Amino acid sequence: MAGDSVALVATTTTGPGILHQLTGVIARHQGDIASVEILEGGPDASRTYLEIKLPDGADALLAELRAMPIVQGIEVVQTLQRIYGKRIIIIGGGAQVGQVAIGAISEADRHNIRGELISVDTIPLVGEQTLAEAVRAVARLPRARALVLAGSLMGGDIERAVRDVRSRGLLVVSLNMAGSVPDAADLVVTDPVQAGVMTVMAIADTAKFSIERLKRRVF
Amino acid sequence: MAGDSVALVATTTTGPGILHQLTGVIARHQGDIASVEILEGGPDASRTYLEIKLPDGADALLAELRAMPIVQGIEVVQTLQRIYGKRIIIIGGGAQVGQVAIGAISEADRHNIRGELISVDTIPLVGEQTLAEAVRAVARLPRARALVLAGSLMGGDIERAVRDVRSRGLLVVSLNMAGSVPDAADLVVTDPVQAGVMTVMAIADTAKFSIERLKRRVF
Repeated sequence: MAGDSVALVATTTTGPGILHQLTGVIARHQGDIASVEILEGGPDASRTYLEIKLPDGADALLAELRAMPIVQGIEVVQTLQRIYGKRIIIIGGGAQVGQVAIGAISEADRHNIRGELISVDTIPLVGEQTLAEAVRAVARLPRARALVLAGSLMGGDIERAVRDVRSRGLLVVSLNMAGSVPDAADLVVTDPVQAGVMTVMAIADTAKFSIERLKRRVF
Repeated sequence: MAGDSVALVATTTTGPGILHQLTGVIARHQGDIASVEILEGGPDASRTYLEIKLPDGADALLAELRAMPIVQGIEVVQTLQRIYGKRIIIIGGGAQVGQVAIGAISEADRHNIRGELISVDTIPLVGEQTLAEAVRAVARLPRARALVLAGSLMGGDIERAVRDVRSRGLLVVSLNMAGSVPDAADLVVTDPVQAGVMTVMAIADTAKFSIERLKRRVF
């Protein structure tokens, strides 16, 4: 199939330069690499996960990779996109992150049963700088589509971080809280369970819900 | 500092072969790449996140990367490990995943305040094959340390997947449920909130709790 994606785990010898050699072969096959993870840095063997978009089928690439002296084995696997899908990230204080997660997980369950694939990822954190860094880093997380800020007071550099990640296309939902973060968000929701549900609805292709069509953005 | 890690976002021209060129320069500096994400595949510019372990400082590498014709900019950022830390993955049915998440997030909050960094990631899923694939894929997720299976009936290929990921060093906690998965897990817990709390305690360096030292493995 043209424009197909293949995911593989390559077991290789260890050391610097391995990825350079693998990517050289992939580039010769016009492969566009979407994601790479180095899974283990053991003493004798290294396992590398690669997600590659290819203009043609993967057979020729797989054969050439298997023939490389550094390669001990190539296993074709499902892409992480196929398994874990889109990600919602919830950041803030433990009590509120937990309640938003309850709503988001429950709603994601309903959509995943109908063929969607949505994961709900969370981290409880304290402190303006720590939170601002975590917000900015969401833009570097693979498959992240929406961010929920779940707390009681957030502003300052967290607000600037929210504006940064929104400008990169991320949807940001904020609980109704003290501080300037709600002013910077796409959507403000008072009930944390509803905030989780609405965020899933906003990114689910199986839902009839669009933030652009809402007549108000504070609930 | 010797053995230091650097994380950077490289803005480059687009197309196959970019990663091959970047990794060539990194290999010449004896850099060991831990993680790569291709962040955007826009028409004119591509952003690549790279996490690199270096024997010496990063200055020489950064200067050489910045001088490459394909490179438009290099931004040094925090590593995802520094920001999101260890990951617990909760997989299963929505109602139970949500309750395990409540316990895990609340307990992670308490440890993160004391300097730990633990994220709690979840996906609600249905079906033996879907669940088995999601379990096996946890071994390909960066920074994943523990898996919680939250459901009422899991067995068959899910049990084999649990044994696979345990053999790769992942801690597996199961709710007390029907099916063969509890027999294959490191720890079986009946209350979902406690299952979340215990899993965080097991991977937190700030906790005095070790599964090896427990006198029973079913609670």
